Amino acid sequence: MKFCSQCGHSVSQKIPEGDNRARFVCTHCNTIHYQNPRIIAGCLALHEDQVLLCKRSIEPRLGKWTLPAGFLENGETTEEGALREMREEANANATILDIYTMFSLPHISQVYMFFRAQLTDLNFSPGHESKDVRLFREDEIPWDDLAFPVIYDTLKFYMEDRVNNHFPVRTRDIRYKPSSHK
Amino acid sequence: MKFCSQCGHSVSQKIPEGDNRARFVCTHCNTIHYQNPRIIAGCLALHEDQVLLCKRSIEPRLGKWTLPAGFLENGETTEEGALREMREEANANATILDIYTMFSLPHISQVYMFFRAQLTDLNFSPGHESKDVRLFREDEIPWDDLAFPVIYDTLKFYMEDRVNNHFPVRTRDIRYKPSSHK
Repeated sequence: MKFCSQCGHSVSQKIPEGDNRARFVCTHCNTIHYQNPRIIAGCLALHEDQVLLCKRSIEPRLGKWTLPAGFLENGETTEEGALREMREEANANATILDIYTMFSLPHISQVYMFFRAQLTDLNFSPGHESKDVRLFREDEIPWDDLAFPVIYDTLKFYMEDRVNNHFPVRTRDIRYKPSSHK
Repeated sequence: MKFCSQCGHSVSQKIPEGDNRARFVCTHCNTIHYQNPRIIAGCLALHEDQVLLCKRSIEPRLGKWTLPAGFLENGETTEEGALREMREEANANATILDIYTMFSLPHISQVYMFFRAQLTDLNFSPGHESKDVRLFREDEIPWDDLAFPVIYDTLKFYMEDRVNNHFPVRTRDIRYKPSSHK
């Protein structure tokens, strides 16, 4: 951030009065520009003993398999965001069962949350960010070709919890050290 | 938002290619400025049969009782944010037990989450946003003087669930219609 989105003058980093961390503050109108983590909401969509995965048609992790998920938008509930991603990435209709996994990724200021969901029909197809959408039984899941650690963990938790048909909310932090070269 | 935070030129609202909703886009450098919901993380801090509440010394809801909570900061996990708010608002130390309640407030693009936490000592005191900090037994809770619906709901859920000593994650949407006058 270099300029104030309210008045267009330059910003500088400083600690506002009563605050304890540096913020971007406008040198002209003194507006404080807070920056906060973003939520990514998605679905673990189920049909009988199968889960729905999408093959990514975009970077990053093009060609890898993922659960439908994306940035929560202003004006949405978390469940609405998760179901919208189901429609956008898989043209799929589902109903939310419950919140299931939540991950903090502090190095990139993201919080992921996945909801267990029940597919309401099998009329799914690739959306504009997917090149394939399929249902997978446990022994068919492409464990070595999953897009992100949060996908791997959510599927692993689910396969463990399914044995007891009990799905407590699972939380985990995923931290990466900054790489030493860009 | 009126100006681009990257180059200082004016922005206009338009739907970027490949997107399906209006964003602020710079008329000069074409940077897309996404705006997303923010997370508020807090603690339901426990000591024996009591819960910790803070009396607000700031607006909104000055003088009302609240659970320590605040905006999650970049670089934090949700648990770290919740514990930081405990320190800032109540000078209190606690350990997280588990995620307990989550609320979507789509009309203001906020997601609240409260963690059950155990106080590690009783050396708490008002922080700079509080004028009092106290432990309350169930029959002492000032139900009519709580700051926000999310506080009321979290305390009600807790008192219900405590009977069975079972604390499933509770989720709820809280929606307000825009008021007809400002």
